[in-house]
Amino acid sequence: MFKEMLENVRRTTPLVHNITNYVTVNDVANVLLACGGSPIMSDDIDDFIDITSICGGLNINIGTLNKNTIESMFAAGKKANELGHVVLLDPVGAGASKLRTDTANKLLEQVKFSAVRGNISEIKTLMNVSAKTRGVDADVADKVTEDNLNDVIAALKAFAAEKKCIVAVTGAIDLVCDSSKCFVIRNGRKEMSSITGTGCQLSGLMTAYMVANPEHKLEAAAAAGCLMGAAGEIGWSRMQDGDGNSTFRNRIIDAIYNMTGDMLEKEAKYEVR
Amino acid sequence: MFKEMLENVRRTTPLVHNITNYVTVNDVANVLLACGGSPIMSDDIDDFIDITSICGGLNINIGTLNKNTIESMFAAGKKANELGHVVLLDPVGAGASKLRTDTANKLLEQVKFSAVRGNISEIKTLMNVSAKTRGVDADVADKVTEDNLNDVIAALKAFAAEKKCIVAVTGAIDLVCDSSKCFVIRNGRKEMSSITGTGCQLSGLMTAYMVANPEHKLEAAAAAGCLMGAAGEIGWSRMQDGDGNSTFRNRIIDAIYNMTGDMLEKEAKYEVR
Amino acid sequence: MFKEMLENVRRTTPLVHNITNYVTVNDVANVLLACGGSPIMSDDIDDFIDITSICGGLNINIGTLNKNTIESMFAAGKKANELGHVVLLDPVGAGASKLRTDTANKLLEQVKFSAVRGNISEIKTLMNVSAKTRGVDADVADKVTEDNLNDVIAALKAFAAEKKCIVAVTGAIDLVCDSSKCFVIRNGRKEMSSITGTGCQLSGLMTAYMVANPEHKLEAAAAAGCLMGAAGEIGWSRMQDGDGNSTFRNRIIDAIYNMTGDMLEKEAKYEVR
Repeated sequence: MFKEMLENVRRTTPLVHNITNYVTVNDVANVLLACGGSPIMSDDIDDFIDITSICGGLNINIGTLNKNTIESMFAAGKKANELGHVVLLDPVGAGASKLRTDTANKLLEQVKFSAVRGNISEIKTLMNVSAKTRGVDADVADKVTEDNLNDVIAALKAFAAEKKCIVAVTGAIDLVCDSSKCFVIRNGRKEMSSITGTGCQLSGLMTAYMVANPEHKLEAAAAAGCLMGAAGEIGWSRMQDGDGNSTFRNRIIDAIYNMTGDMLEKEAKYEVR
Repeated sequence: MFKEMLENVRRTTPLVHNITNYVTVNDVANVLLACGGSPIMSDDIDDFIDITSICGGLNINIGTLNKNTIESMFAAGKKANELGHVVLLDPVGAGASKLRTDTANKLLEQVKFSAVRGNISEIKTLMNVSAKTRGVDADVADKVTEDNLNDVIAALKAFAAEKKCIVAVTGAIDLVCDSSKCFVIRNGRKEMSSITGTGCQLSGLMTAYMVANPEHKLEAAAAAGCLMGAAGEIGWSRMQDGDGNSTFRNRIIDAIYNMTGDMLEKEAKYEVR
Repeated sequence: MFKEMLENVRRTTPLVHNITNYVTVNDVANVLLACGGSPIMSDDIDDFIDITSICGGLNINIGTLNKNTIESMFAAGKKANELGHVVLLDPVGAGASKLRTDTANKLLEQVKFSAVRGNISEIKTLMNVSAKTRGVDADVADKVTEDNLNDVIAALKAFAAEKKCIVAVTGAIDLVCDSSKCFVIRNGRKEMSSITGTGCQLSGLMTAYMVANPEHKLEAAAAAGCLMGAAGEIGWSRMQDGDGNSTFRNRIIDAIYNMTGDMLEKEAKYEVR
């Protein structure tokens, strides 16, 4: 099924509107092009209504939020809802500052999201479970392990049911859940955490995959998770002596560019719980 | 002649002021350094008057415009006009939103541009020809082909005459025109469209080339077009198994860094109509 | 000693808050990850107080300053001072515009910096020595050479004494001084100036190194200088036929990712004056 989903993206070129941070925005644009989508970035209140309208999906990332962009996030989210578009929230740094936590929470109240994707600290913050967030990276104490996996999945399913949206947590193990079903994904490399923005890139990919596969959003989000992880594995396998995180970044995006449906089917490592 | 133009850039290190989008700004800076120029980015109204004054040219790109930067674009453009500097407009996404279309049109009215560079959808929007713009990428229906080439050239020359500036349209075939002469450039690779910002990069290069070759601006803009396309061809020839759009981006900028006047003369593929 | 300093960074993962420009922000984030630190970017006045508090250091870079971010720079700097954190100033383009010069000077008056790092033109501007700044690159007339080295060092030591902070000037020769001691560093490659943001990256590294080595800030800043220069040399040694400034950028960050304490000790070329 992932094969068909990848091919739907390449065939339909989903146009994704991104209100995102200025740290990783270039990589998000290139990864959307690599997967077969088309990115557009716009965050001015007078601009994005038109932009949102011509797009199929909206990716809201609060990584470098400010007064102006926060206003745009709410308005663009509501506009996308009116149009029945896919909308994804990436709550970067929720838990690290009150503004980030509050903005993410209010967005979840006022906008209907198709999916929320973050690390476990960010998602736990949104679930009102006590979490000490270490900046934008997951708190080690909040790690998802084989031991606590079933408990985490149960909590995520409950949160997905409450918010009526897909919840995706990425880390050593990736979890992509709705209220009843959870894809447990074991693709990826730990070295991906030494590159800025692999999470932001995945949020872009998930948005594109859901836009191109509207009847199967959960599976599409899971396919995007497997795609990112498999690209990390392929990219790492191409690393040469002396290469480091900057080259790894390029190789991951390259691997997404070259991924075929058959490769994705073959490389995807997941179970459903 | 292109050889001399390239060497003028390397010899005089044109300083280019960029008011540009935050998606591709890093690539624009690196490509300006690669060609032998020097970039400076500044968009605050209290900052850019001084910055514009020390530069030789101004590159205005509306890719992620907002209230503050729009104000700066007008003021910096007028200041650059006062100083007799080269000014280029890259109307990213004109046609995709009313704000972008209106801003580009007003800039064309109030600022005297040396050149306007965009894809065919953007330029057709500015020519008031009906165009359905697909985000920031050219609408396929608006493609320049061998069949409609002469008609497009005639329209561009008329627009160049009306606006008294160079008009450059880039795509599968690149066209760089003034009111009487059009360089039809057949360099480049179709895979360049899978990299974000090759257009933005070319706008930076064209600005630098016009600054360094003030007596031959049309030829300089055409030289920059051939340079970008030839760099795409050279970059692609260096691609290895498993490489994709992220590595291609690096190889294009690398090829510009290594381009000599002799190479550019040899690789440039154009005719004048 | 540099070996221990590098290992302290890798062991303690210093979290660095960056208020920086949008041109080179992605490279600054990746270089901080490469060295073993953790970056967070935040510039909204309602956000950064919380962010500053969870970080160990603050890196203020005025490369694309505007009204909003200037306000944040002052407030975040004062907050970091209250908390006793490391604070570094990178006065990009001081001397190129009145706003940049004034902002850097006022920051130096109102915030207590651990270190200031710039090119010789920027630092001379701050020392009120006449300097004609060529954009964000050092004015050639202001070059540090073997001939004027002792005079420059004396001036920098006096400035360091006046401001009670470390002063770092980078160029063909790097100088890292306090009021009594100057590390004269001869690592690096001249081709590093053809990459945008190597200076911004070094400011990020210096901040991380000072955070992780609070008892030896001068030596830590010097270690970061040697690290960047040595990475430039290693990165250049890995360049292949046809590679240029874009690939060189990746190879430098890769070299920082792979640098060990032993390599840094071996590669560091400096004397103390």
